Amino acid sequence: MASVKEMDTYAKLWMKEAGSKLRASFETKLNIEIKTNPNDLVTNMDKAIETFFCDKITETFPEHRIFGEEGMGNEIKDLKGTVWILDPIDGTLNFIHQQRNFAISLGIYEDGIGKIGMIYDVVNDELYHVIKGEGAFMNDQRLSPLKEVSVSKAILSMNASWVTENRRIDPSLLAPLVRDARGTRSYGSAALELAYVAAGRLDAYITMRLMPWDFAGGVLLVEEVGGEVSNITDKKLDFLEGDSLFVSKPGLHKEVFEKYLTGNTSL
Amino acid sequence: MASVKEMDTYAKLWMKEAGSKLRASFETKLNIEIKTNPNDLVTNMDKAIETFFCDKITETFPEHRIFGEEGMGNEIKDLKGTVWILDPIDGTLNFIHQQRNFAISLGIYEDGIGKIGMIYDVVNDELYHVIKGEGAFMNDQRLSPLKEVSVSKAILSMNASWVTENRRIDPSLLAPLVRDARGTRSYGSAALELAYVAAGRLDAYITMRLMPWDFAGGVLLVEEVGGEVSNITDKKLDFLEGDSLFVSKPGLHKEVFEKYLTGNTSL
Repeated sequence: MASVKEMDTYAKLWMKEAGSKLRASFETKLNIEIKTNPNDLVTNMDKAIETFFCDKITETFPEHRIFGEEGMGNEIKDLKGTVWILDPIDGTLNFIHQQRNFAISLGIYEDGIGKIGMIYDVVNDELYHVIKGEGAFMNDQRLSPLKEVSVSKAILSMNASWVTENRRIDPSLLAPLVRDARGTRSYGSAALELAYVAAGRLDAYITMRLMPWDFAGGVLLVEEVGGEVSNITDKKLDFLEGDSLFVSKPGLHKEVFEKYLTGNTSL
Repeated sequence: MASVKEMDTYAKLWMKEAGSKLRASFETKLNIEIKTNPNDLVTNMDKAIETFFCDKITETFPEHRIFGEEGMGNEIKDLKGTVWILDPIDGTLNFIHQQRNFAISLGIYEDGIGKIGMIYDVVNDELYHVIKGEGAFMNDQRLSPLKEVSVSKAILSMNASWVTENRRIDPSLLAPLVRDARGTRSYGSAALELAYVAAGRLDAYITMRLMPWDFAGGVLLVEEVGGEVSNITDKKLDFLEGDSLFVSKPGLHKEVFEKYLTGNTSL
């Protein structure tokens, strides 16, 4: 079995190389296609970056499997062995509209246990990375343990769609949380929002629907600095089908479940 | 009267110098005070930057008046003569919590007519600037004229609080806009959100309550590239008392008023 250090070294190298490809793509015309709905878009670069990782991983670690957003890896029905869970561009809409606020997200899991998490904010050249148990970093800077905070002093990341009519949650449920928090933000990239929670820039991030590649890297960063991770019914995340997500600084997690999310039968 | 070029040259110089002071402050401990409510905070750096500009402006242009967030300039009851409208740190909460996603915002008005707009994204070293009629720029890069876009393809910046119970607007009014737009974001700095609209990264920005120093610089950038600017009743902005704000790409402005905001008596 490949050592964690070895995977970490290669993963970082490939992240940087993939980042260069994405930066170079800003000078070219994107080819944009519609996926499941008119707002779910994919570009030639999402596919190119996933292909790049698949080729590298298969060549270097032929036993490993790949669980990627664009489906160019393996068909994954369990997390046995070593699985690289990859989102080649998390925040594709931002990539298209803004050419910033997107990231490459990677989690490496062995028999379902998270070993390595990486989120690369390409435009800012900020690589968030963690080897489980060895500390979380942004580039060379170690991220500090997260401190407790209350809702009233928290900056919360949550999309406005979850407090308007939607298919996932009664909008009246989270509205009081928006009202009581110090502020609400929304960046449109789950991976970056997880990295921001790990870096202490956001106190919490809540969303109703993500796929495993959106959170596989980020939750390892958040856990490493003492943050709390669950779905919005306070259960463990589903790494095969995807899930809702609520991550936060310690203390805040309990407060939100006690005051805003517990006992509500609509969940 | 000072020439516009002269004011522009000095303003850029002072912006950069103020930016250096803000970057340097990241290494020091902030002194944070509460203003009107527990979520309306001010730091020693907001005051220091405003004082810095006031000193420079008064020394260089003694006839000019200063309309600043922290009240260190003049008491402004009209816009006669030359008025520098300044927010030393727009996005103070972000400055405190994130050490990014804040900006220095400046508009220079002569007899109420906008002449110069500047927004400095300090951490990214991106200076958005415009001399009315001479084009808008991010650093040395000229910003392109904005193209028409429909709601269904628009990324809209709007805080979640405006679609939850609040004192300013019926939350059900903007909820359909959130639902119909391609995506919603919120960055917590009006100045940056205006700069992003001018740069084409956001298609629209809507908010219920700003003060003149929040928008004085940014609206000049948006107008220069063909964007549309009004309050949310489609009237001209109030540059003395502050106002609501809706800026967008052309076409989108009309669509939003026709489909979402017109005829609603709660406004």
